[in-house]
Amino acid sequence: MHSSPPPPLFAAFPAVAPLDREMTADLQHKIDHKTKPLGALGRLEPLALQLGLIQQTLAPQLQQPHLLVCAGDHGAAKAGVSAYPQDVTWQMVENFLAGGAAINVFSRLAGMRLVVADAGVAHDFGPRPGLVNVKVSATGTQNYIEGAAMTAAECADAMNKGATLVHEFAAIGCNVLGFGEMGIGNTASASLITHCLTGLPLSDCVGRGTGLDDAGLERKRTLLAQALAAWPERGEMNQNAEAVLARFGGFEIAMLAGAMLAAAEARMLLLIDGFIVTSALLVAARVAPAVLDYCVYAHCSNETGHRLQLDWLKATPLLDLGLRLGEGTGAALAMPLVRAACAFMNDMASFESAGVSEKSE
Amino acid sequence: MHSSPPPPLFAAFPAVAPLDREMTADLQHKIDHKTKPLGALGRLEPLALQLGLIQQTLAPQLQQPHLLVCAGDHGAAKAGVSAYPQDVTWQMVENFLAGGAAINVFSRLAGMRLVVADAGVAHDFGPRPGLVNVKVSATGTQNYIEGAAMTAAECADAMNKGATLVHEFAAIGCNVLGFGEMGIGNTASASLITHCLTGLPLSDCVGRGTGLDDAGLERKRTLLAQALAAWPERGEMNQNAEAVLARFGGFEIAMLAGAMLAAAEARMLLLIDGFIVTSALLVAARVAPAVLDYCVYAHCSNETGHRLQLDWLKATPLLDLGLRLGEGTGAALAMPLVRAACAFMNDMASFESAGVSEKSE
Repeated sequence: MHSSPPPPLFAAFPAVAPLDREMTADLQHKIDHKTKPLGALGRLEPLALQLGLIQQTLAPQLQQPHLLVCAGDHGAAKAGVSAYPQDVTWQMVENFLAGGAAINVFSRLAGMRLVVADAGVAHDFGPRPGLVNVKVSATGTQNYIEGAAMTAAECADAMNKGATLVHEFAAIGCNVLGFGEMGIGNTASASLITHCLTGLPLSDCVGRGTGLDDAGLERKRTLLAQALAAWPERGEMNQNAEAVLARFGGFEIAMLAGAMLAAAEARMLLLIDGFIVTSALLVAARVAPAVLDYCVYAHCSNETGHRLQLDWLKATPLLDLGLRLGEGTGAALAMPLVRAACAFMNDMASFESAGVSEKSE
Repeated sequence: MHSSPPPPLFAAFPAVAPLDREMTADLQHKIDHKTKPLGALGRLEPLALQLGLIQQTLAPQLQQPHLLVCAGDHGAAKAGVSAYPQDVTWQMVENFLAGGAAINVFSRLAGMRLVVADAGVAHDFGPRPGLVNVKVSATGTQNYIEGAAMTAAECADAMNKGATLVHEFAAIGCNVLGFGEMGIGNTASASLITHCLTGLPLSDCVGRGTGLDDAGLERKRTLLAQALAAWPERGEMNQNAEAVLARFGGFEIAMLAGAMLAAAEARMLLLIDGFIVTSALLVAARVAPAVLDYCVYAHCSNETGHRLQLDWLKATPLLDLGLRLGEGTGAALAMPLVRAACAFMNDMASFESAGVSEKSE
């Protein structure tokens, strides 16, 4: 573990530039003169403004939308933090590759290219079309109830691999990227990360994940409190995102954090999914706070801690459908709203061009 | 005005059959065995169930989605219930025909065929491609502050024309229909209808419409209270939907109500938009309560009374984006969620077919 700033890991990530807001008035003028009452498109209006600022244009375009799903296994999963056996991680990756999971269906509907990245699933898939092998470890993370989930080098490796993937998307013109994940036990990891990086009480950050009953939820709370107590550096380290990530992270979470930083650097729109993806964002935002300027919060998950994360980030999600599936499903389901925001900017007439009378004063 | 039951108008509408729920268990079984935790797709799951029940199949399909926008003018608009001049109704219809309005953009994105019906706009469009001339009157409704907005015969004509349009959609295989409207002053009409059919206080049902300021809102409240006071039959008539509709309705609202009844009879899924469309639904549901079984509530509008209508109907909207534009924009924006609900039923693998382990007990 490294505790002295600057951490070598994060030093490798160039700063993300805050949005240049000089075009705000011009963009707002364009929005306000569309053939509709002022503000009548609600949440789609600030979304269109954000898109314009990210792309620095009055006519934003969505190009080559991708959805990146990172998968990884968690040593702590075997300790009983999930209702599902650890094998479900690789089985679900197989399901992604066969096209049968929810995220396959929803990303197809949303017109997003799905990329599944094996960040460290405890399974040998062999070379497979549709699966990107970026394994940080062949066995998943270590059990953080007993020690660090990963080394600092593994953590950096995961983040760098995430960034590299995004550079490839950028090279083919992608400017909107949704994030998803798969990893049995990863809501537990996200709970610990969220607690450490926000200061919210741990028990508030722990939810039922894929469907724990009351007894299971209690067990999960006890185990995570134990994991926290077992971390000698917890007192001084809770402001150090790298240390938190290496101690409690999943490889998929670290990879997502690196991918987010690279995506914001490449001026993409980031479509943030649920609880686990948002925990990766908390890490990324500690590295480069301006990453938040590029984020759209796709939905509010039914996993307890997600609402708390969103409130902490002062973020308002687009959808609130009681989803709690992960995989990036919320991000894919919100994509049509992003398309709508972009399309009205480009395709709606103005009062002037349509010859429609404006409001009488 | 007719006050003696049964009103001749509604007698013309055959009863809408309540959903046959015998397939519920089979549909739920299919939903529960998809590769996801139980209930993890949130609101999309009951939506898929509803689709299956409407179509009476385990494999529902969305065919030939249409979005019907009915437009009409209101005699009361000139009395000052709106922030916009009445001419905006025909100007916006022209905008629809030119493809420049929000509903053009959103229905195109949603893959819905947009049909614009002139229910009684005070303007002569002449024969125009893309506009269905089903005018009930060439001059719009009468001012309900002074008398009835329309005669019973006009009301029946509007409803029947709406039904006839839907029969045409059904003939080409349409099984999902969104509803929208255009008509300067029609939030005022919807407020009166909502008050009369729900018993909610009139002042609670009155909102800012397309953007009234505080003084304008007060004027609107005063005018509508005056309209209500001027109705001699208000005491005994507030349970008679036909009388309410003829007194305060717009032609577009009556046409929508007739269209909804025909759509439910044809076993379509009805995508309900905002405040005005929901006021038409209140009328339709008084005629045939089972129409509600076929409805999906697309969104909650920012127009004050819409939330009250939804609560009164015990309806939960899919989206809550602060929209207040009308035109059916909320219905079009919710269409991708309906597609997602339908697609997961058909295209997601089951635990068994995908070889994924189920939850451990």
